[in-house]
Amino acid sequence: MVQLEEQSVARRIIAAIKQRIHGGEYRPGDRLPSSRALAAEWGVSRTTVTAAYGQLIAEGYLFNRPGARAVVARGLAAAPAPKAVAPESKRALSDFAERLLALPAPARFHTYRVADLRYGDLNGADFPLLAWRRALNRASLRRAERLRYSDPQGSAPLRTALQSYLWRARGIVCAPEQIVVVNGSQQGLDLCARLLLDPGDNFIMEDPGYVLARHAFAASGGMTVPVAVDREGIRTEGLPQARLAYVTPSHQYPLGSVLSAARRRALLDWAAEAGAMVVEDDYDGEYRHGVAPIPPLQVSAPERVIYLGTVSKTLSPTLRLGYLVVPPDLSRAFAEAKRLTDRHTPLLEQEALAEFLSSGGYERHIRSIRRRNAERRAALLQALVEECGTRLTVTGADTGLHVVAWLNGVPVEREAAVVEAAREAGIGLYPIGPLYASGAKRPAEAGFVVGYAAHDVDVIRRGAAGLAKVFAAVA
Amino acid sequence: MVQLEEQSVARRIIAAIKQRIHGGEYRPGDRLPSSRALAAEWGVSRTTVTAAYGQLIAEGYLFNRPGARAVVARGLAAAPAPKAVAPESKRALSDFAERLLALPAPARFHTYRVADLRYGDLNGADFPLLAWRRALNRASLRRAERLRYSDPQGSAPLRTALQSYLWRARGIVCAPEQIVVVNGSQQGLDLCARLLLDPGDNFIMEDPGYVLARHAFAASGGMTVPVAVDREGIRTEGLPQARLAYVTPSHQYPLGSVLSAARRRALLDWAAEAGAMVVEDDYDGEYRHGVAPIPPLQVSAPERVIYLGTVSKTLSPTLRLGYLVVPPDLSRAFAEAKRLTDRHTPLLEQEALAEFLSSGGYERHIRSIRRRNAERRAALLQALVEECGTRLTVTGADTGLHVVAWLNGVPVEREAAVVEAAREAGIGLYPIGPLYASGAKRPAEAGFVVGYAAHDVDVIRRGAAGLAKVFAAVA
Repeated sequence: MVQLEEQSVARRIIAAIKQRIHGGEYRPGDRLPSSRALAAEWGVSRTTVTAAYGQLIAEGYLFNRPGARAVVARGLAAAPAPKAVAPESKRALSDFAERLLALPAPARFHTYRVADLRYGDLNGADFPLLAWRRALNRASLRRAERLRYSDPQGSAPLRTALQSYLWRARGIVCAPEQIVVVNGSQQGLDLCARLLLDPGDNFIMEDPGYVLARHAFAASGGMTVPVAVDREGIRTEGLPQARLAYVTPSHQYPLGSVLSAARRRALLDWAAEAGAMVVEDDYDGEYRHGVAPIPPLQVSAPERVIYLGTVSKTLSPTLRLGYLVVPPDLSRAFAEAKRLTDRHTPLLEQEALAEFLSSGGYERHIRSIRRRNAERRAALLQALVEECGTRLTVTGADTGLHVVAWLNGVPVEREAAVVEAAREAGIGLYPIGPLYASGAKRPAEAGFVVGYAAHDVDVIRRGAAGLAKVFAAVA
Repeated sequence: MVQLEEQSVARRIIAAIKQRIHGGEYRPGDRLPSSRALAAEWGVSRTTVTAAYGQLIAEGYLFNRPGARAVVARGLAAAPAPKAVAPESKRALSDFAERLLALPAPARFHTYRVADLRYGDLNGADFPLLAWRRALNRASLRRAERLRYSDPQGSAPLRTALQSYLWRARGIVCAPEQIVVVNGSQQGLDLCARLLLDPGDNFIMEDPGYVLARHAFAASGGMTVPVAVDREGIRTEGLPQARLAYVTPSHQYPLGSVLSAARRRALLDWAAEAGAMVVEDDYDGEYRHGVAPIPPLQVSAPERVIYLGTVSKTLSPTLRLGYLVVPPDLSRAFAEAKRLTDRHTPLLEQEALAEFLSSGGYERHIRSIRRRNAERRAALLQALVEECGTRLTVTGADTGLHVVAWLNGVPVEREAAVVEAAREAGIGLYPIGPLYASGAKRPAEAGFVVGYAAHDVDVIRRGAAGLAKVFAAVA
C-alpha cells in the first residue's frame, strides 16, 4: 500500500510540474528544485521525487546533465495543445493497411516487480558500451568530405567485414555484392514479403513460428500455410505449392528443434520443384550450448535461400542492424527496394559495426555474452527443475536464449489464467498460443516461451521460484 | 597522363595487396609496410600508395588506427571466393518487384575533378561533429537496464522535442501521438504509398517533381497524374480524382516556387472533396533566404495533410532521420506499418537527436549552416551572372539549397550533350529532364538542377567558371 501511495504522489508531482511548465511558471532552461527540496515540499521520500523526475525526463519535459539539476527542456512552454481534429470517419486506406490493422495487436508492455521473462530483451549490462562508443567515435572521425546518400545495399567495409564474419562463424561463402544491410531482421522479412509475394500467394510458415514474420508476409497479402513442427523441425512431407517458405532451421522458434539433414534436403528439393524461395532466419545462431554448429541451409542451396542475420540478439535490438545474403540475381531487386524503402541503413552505425567486426571486438563480445547467457540458462533450468519438478516439461534448451515450458496436465484453456496469475505475482510470462497460426493443431497443454537473457542469475532464480508457486496454484 | 599512370599503378598495388591477403602472405592483424617503404618498393610517390591504402580501407581489407600503420582486417584471408551461382532464369518476383525494376536507374556516382553540383549532398565540414558526438555519448550513458524493442512511432523524448520544435520553427500544433519517427523522408513516403495507395489508384505529382517520391508511389502500383507547376506552385484548376497528392508547397522541388494562398485553399478543397490525402514534403523548410517563413499546409488542414520533415538537409543525409505528422486517426496505421517494416528507427540516434533538440544545439546549428549556405548561394549566383551573363536564366533561388539554371536558346535535346561536356570539364551537372514525369510538357530549353551545399565558396566559383566555358561551347 505504501508503494501505491508513493506512486500516486509521484503522479501528482508529475502533473504539477507539467502544469507549471505549460503555465509558464517554469520556463525553458530553468533549473528545477533539487530532489531533496521537492521531497521536503511534498513530504515524500527523495526516491519518489527522483522517480517523478525520471518520468518527466523520459517524456522529454526535462533535460538532465550528469551531476547537475534537471532543467526544463527548451521551448516546451510555448507549444499549445492541439485542437481536437475531427477523425475522418470513412478514411480510405489501402488493402495493405486493412490487412495490417486486422492483425492481432502485440502484447502491451508492463513493468513487473519480480521478473519479466519476455523473449527478445537483452540485459543492458551486457552491451559493450565502451567498445561500441569507441567504434562509433572512430567511425565518426573518418568523416567524409561530402555527406551524400550511401549505397542502398550497405557500406562496402561493412559488407566486406560481414562476408568474412559469415564465413568464419557460419561457413557461408558469398560475395559482398550478395549482402544487403537492413534495419534489423524485420526489414529483411518485409523486403522478402514485398519482392517475393503477391496478394493471394501461399507462403509456408512453421507452426508454431515467429509471429512478426507471419504478419509481414500476411500484410503483403500472402496466405499462411501453417506446417507443423516436431523434434526434427518443420515437417516436410507433402509440402503444398507456395512461393516462399519461412524457416528457422538452426533453432526452430519457438520449439527449439534443429532441422534434420533429411528434412533440409527435402525442403530444398521442394523449393527447387516449386520455384519457391526459402527465407532462412538465423536469429540466434551465435548461441549454442553444447551442440555442434549447424551449417545454414544457405550453404547447401545459395540460389534458393535468402539468409537473414541480425545483431539484435548479440548487441541490442535497439540498434536495428541486420543483413541478408541473397542469390546474385536478386541483389539488384533487393538494393532497389531498399533504396525506395529508406535509401540505406544509417551510415555511422554501419561503419561502427564494420570497425567492431574488423577489429575482432565483435567476436570477443560474442564469446563473453555467450558465457553469460549460458550461466543464465543453467540457472533457469536448475531453478525450474528444483522449484517445479515434474510439473513442467522444458524443451528447446540446447541453443538460443529461450526455452519453452509446458505445464503438464494443465489444459491450454488455462494459459491466459496462468499468465494473469503470474502477472499478479509480479512475473511477466508469455503464452505460446499466439505463435500458432491456428489454434486447432496445437498441443493440448498450456505452454510458455521463457526468455532469460535480460536478467541476472539471482532474478532468474526468484522468477522461477515465483513461477513455481503460480504453477502449483493452477495445477 | 602522369595522373592516369599513377592511377593505374595504384590499381596494381591494390591488386597485389589483395592477392597477398588472399594468398595468406599477409595475415589478419599483420601491419602493412609504411607508405614510404611501399612507395620506394614500387618506385612511386607516397600519394599513390596512400590512395591505394585508402581504397583498401574503404573496401574493408585493411583497418586503420589514427597515427599507426594499417593492419590487415581480421579473418579476410580465410574467406574463399564464392563459386558462381547459376542465375535462376525464371525467378518469379512480385508485381511490386517488377514495377520497381522497371523504374529508371538513378544516376551513377562519379568523382569530378573540379566540382560536383549534385543536389542533396552536404559539406562534411558543416556537420556538427563534436556536438553530435556529445549528444550520442550522453544518450548512450543513459543506458537502459533492459534492451528491448522500442516504440514503433519513435522514442517519447524525441517526439516531445519534435513537437515543440515544429511549433517554434514551423507553427505546427500537434500532439506527440501524431508524430512518427522514420528513417529519413524516403521511408515516410514509402509508408504513405503502402497505407494510402492500391495498385491502379491515381496519385497527383508535381511535374517536374521529386523523382524518388514518384517512384515510391509508382512502385506501390499507383498511377502518376503529373500536374504542371508554374510560379505559384502546382496548378490546382481541374485536379482529377486521386487518392493522394504529393506536394512541396514551401519550396517546390525543383522549380523553387512557393504555393500561393489561393492554390493552397484550392488544393485542400479538392482533397476534402476527393477524400484524398495531401503529402506535404517540407524537405528544406529551414532554408529561407530573404523571404518570410511560409506556414505549412498541415496548419490549415491537419486532418487532410501528412507532413514530412527530415534532418537530411540540416545534419546529414546519412543519418536517416525524419518524421511524419499524421492525423490522429491515422497514427495507429502508421505505427503498425512502421513496426512491421523495421520495428523502429535506431534508438541511440533518436535519443541523440532528442538531446540535440532539447539542448538548443540543433537550432544553433541551423543558424550556422543557414549562414554558410547563404554565402554559397550568393557566390554561386554572382559567379553565374559574371561568368555566364544572359546565357542563363536562374530560377528558384529564394529558398533551399539549389537553383535551376536554364540555358537560353539551347534546346532540350542538347541536355545530355551539355552534361557530357561538363563531365569532361570535371564538373558534375544534373539535367532537369528526369524530374518530369513525361517529356511532352516540359520547357523547350535545356535546364539543370544545381546544388551548392556541398562545396566551399572557392570551389563553387571554379565550378561556375568551368560551366561558363561549357555553356559557351554549346551555345
